[in-house]
Amino acid sequence: MKEVARRAGVALSSVSRVLNDHPDVSDAMRAKVIAAIKELGYQPNLVASSLRRGSTKTVGFVVADISNPLFADITWGAERRLNRAGYSMVLTNSEGDPARDEKMVRLLRRRRVDGLIISLADETRKETIAELKHLEVPIVLIDREVGDLASASAVLADHAEGMRRATELLFDLGHRRIGLIGPSESTRPGRERLAGFKAAHSSRRVGVDWDLVKLGGLSPAFGEAMAHELLNLKDPPSALISAGNLLLVGTLRALHRARVSVGSEISLVSCDDVPLAELYNPPITVVDRNTVEMGEIAAGLLLERLEDPEAKPRVATVPTRLIVRASTAAAR
Amino acid sequence: MKEVARRAGVALSSVSRVLNDHPDVSDAMRAKVIAAIKELGYQPNLVASSLRRGSTKTVGFVVADISNPLFADITWGAERRLNRAGYSMVLTNSEGDPARDEKMVRLLRRRRVDGLIISLADETRKETIAELKHLEVPIVLIDREVGDLASASAVLADHAEGMRRATELLFDLGHRRIGLIGPSESTRPGRERLAGFKAAHSSRRVGVDWDLVKLGGLSPAFGEAMAHELLNLKDPPSALISAGNLLLVGTLRALHRARVSVGSEISLVSCDDVPLAELYNPPITVVDRNTVEMGEIAAGLLLERLEDPEAKPRVATVPTRLIVRASTAAAR
Repeated sequence: MKEVARRAGVALSSVSRVLNDHPDVSDAMRAKVIAAIKELGYQPNLVASSLRRGSTKTVGFVVADISNPLFADITWGAERRLNRAGYSMVLTNSEGDPARDEKMVRLLRRRRVDGLIISLADETRKETIAELKHLEVPIVLIDREVGDLASASAVLADHAEGMRRATELLFDLGHRRIGLIGPSESTRPGRERLAGFKAAHSSRRVGVDWDLVKLGGLSPAFGEAMAHELLNLKDPPSALISAGNLLLVGTLRALHRARVSVGSEISLVSCDDVPLAELYNPPITVVDRNTVEMGEIAAGLLLERLEDPEAKPRVATVPTRLIVRASTAAAR
Repeated sequence: MKEVARRAGVALSSVSRVLNDHPDVSDAMRAKVIAAIKELGYQPNLVASSLRRGSTKTVGFVVADISNPLFADITWGAERRLNRAGYSMVLTNSEGDPARDEKMVRLLRRRRVDGLIISLADETRKETIAELKHLEVPIVLIDREVGDLASASAVLADHAEGMRRATELLFDLGHRRIGLIGPSESTRPGRERLAGFKAAHSSRRVGVDWDLVKLGGLSPAFGEAMAHELLNLKDPPSALISAGNLLLVGTLRALHRARVSVGSEISLVSCDDVPLAELYNPPITVVDRNTVEMGEIAAGLLLERLEDPEAKPRVATVPTRLIVRASTAAAR
């Protein structure tokens, strides 16, 4: 590399940037360095250089569902940050299947990724955790907690606080029977959202009615089925928290089918400010968070450990904020 | 490999599947083969084997905007199909910037991907096309056409037919002044949608009013600005085609701001059946296509050439269909 730098008349760091395919190298600089390499008969390629330095400059990403706009935002934020630092993202999709988590981690280990970003479909599955422990590279969990995984940093959203505030808003509007549809407690968002819901009930000294709590999925189909069940109770809730943007899609389908108007006949809260929530009539109150930023932070937590092997894993938390709109109205 | 198969007591093809990290290999089979490899002192890893066989079992994907739900669907469909065939996807994002297309293609070339799937930000940029020609691996274009790129297959959506039918629907409802907001003509969807719009005008012997045609972007901001302009014309259109799901987001923002009701005061058509279109009140008429299937087809077109070097590039077209809903109503 020193010889190449001398021949090209550029700094050693410039040669390194060209060889590592840093995206911000100018075409002129790249041409100079490549010409010098050719003159010296040196044949670099990223696969060969990864063997030499034991690094592939790739980061594996296991996402639960790329077609969910939230995961797409997180992926976007992470890829942009990694790319700027000279890393490429190998994207895999667990499709929400806990057994595929394990398969994808194993695949990425054998691909010798330098690091892993993962949003597990199930935090509690032993085989996946064992596979993660096998991995000798830094790991960043996205909105997940795995007890004794010493190698993992994490970026978390403060769902509990957002959900507590949303539930208290509904109490303030006079609602007493509040339904909750949310993801399973086997992942952190499910547990945290339930914790916030419960905290609001205790602070108002109202007991949780467990018939109104439906946890277990993230899909439109789950949201629709659970909303349908809640609407058909003898004493249905006067307000509904549909804690997920795809759950909202299903919940609205059920409400349309039952001809129940949002706002006037039932109050509705959802999570994450997707276009549907913003532009629905009436606009829907949501607990929002910055998902693109979560992806950027995940990549940053990984990069700090890739760049400094002494750096310790750490946890970053992003806030949630309650956006109050016309879908939440006074109880009748 | 023969020695390993003998030692493990399994078929040669099973050893190959384990070494190529085929995802459907059982854990027991993998353990057997790995044990035999260790006994024989043979150290496989995917990076090393990629050097031996000149293949990395990776496919590069250059997507224009992963946070757009359509691209997320396409990515999901493609990744699933590639993964089943033993390939991993290296995801890069051009962020809709034509200069980044070129950078990303160059990066993926140096990463020695076995194939490339790309949705170019601009089909006409010479530098990018030159870089694509450099690439000595099969290419699949997603909804793009590049004149003399002999190495490229393509999966295309029949936007022109869908847009022609949507425009004719509006003529049938009595509309004569129809606005069109759409992507730039530098990519195929922009050209095709305009072609369908024009075809409907000629078939009804109505001249296109070019003051009502606003092509140039895909973002919510572009949609909002153009809808605002059209609404403020002296003689505004009675119907609007907002040809893109993010353009729809911006268009609805402009309509809300101007307090113009969809359906009763202005007819509205969009493209792609996202939750916002389905659940808006009134529901929005769309030209739909199966985007997950487009991703699967793109991966399939690539795999047929990776598996058979004699296979020729080819073009597959997916249909669009018009879903008529209450947002399109008789002109007043």
